[in-house]
Amino acid sequence: MSKFAMYGKLTASPGKRDELVLILLEASRSLKDMAGCELYIINESVDDPDTIWVTELWSDGEAHAGSLKNEEVLAVIQRARPLIAGAEQVRLRPVGGKGIDV
Amino acid sequence: MSKFAMYGKLTASPGKRDELVLILLEASRSLKDMAGCELYIINESVDDPDTIWVTELWSDGEAHAGSLKNEEVLAVIQRARPLIAGAEQVRLRPVGGKGIDV
Repeated sequence: MSKFAMYGKLTASPGKRDELVLILLEASRSLKDMAGCELYIINESVDDPDTIWVTELWSDGEAHAGSLKNEEVLAVIQRARPLIAGAEQVRLRPVGGKGIDV
Repeated sequence: MSKFAMYGKLTASPGKRDELVLILLEASRSLKDMAGCELYIINESVDDPDTIWVTELWSDGEAHAGSLKNEEVLAVIQRARPLIAGAEQVRLRPVGGKGIDV
């Protein structure tokens, strides 16, 4: 099965990006021990003050889907929700490059 | 200096995505030994048959800018150009997460 990658775009409510980043950093700590999660990098947009992009790489799509049932992850989503004005996904199929084994 | 990340969106000319992916994979091999380049992952969009997204992570913005002066990289850009119908960038400031040291 091929790996699964995703860019998750989150638009924070105005002025709430820093707070949302902190919650996502906390979420990433609960992913440290999750074997199927290879990358979960939180980025601030350089050009848009309310936007966060999360770079995700998973061993396969099932690992990603499974993570969304994890209790810690669900608790973080609940806390983050009031700070989020919008969310979009870019779904990706990694084919190779530097920093990935496919 | 903080790290620099980027999503590079490339729209291939119709039917040319596979060919463009091969050129980018070749480019990524010439980046293997470039110290400032931490990630250069080539992804096919799941939802758009002409789209490629490249996930880039660099030690800093200067390392990225420097790579664009590298002869091998320039040669690859020249070869790829006729296959590219459009290009966009999302410029990012990584703040932490899994798979990155900041």
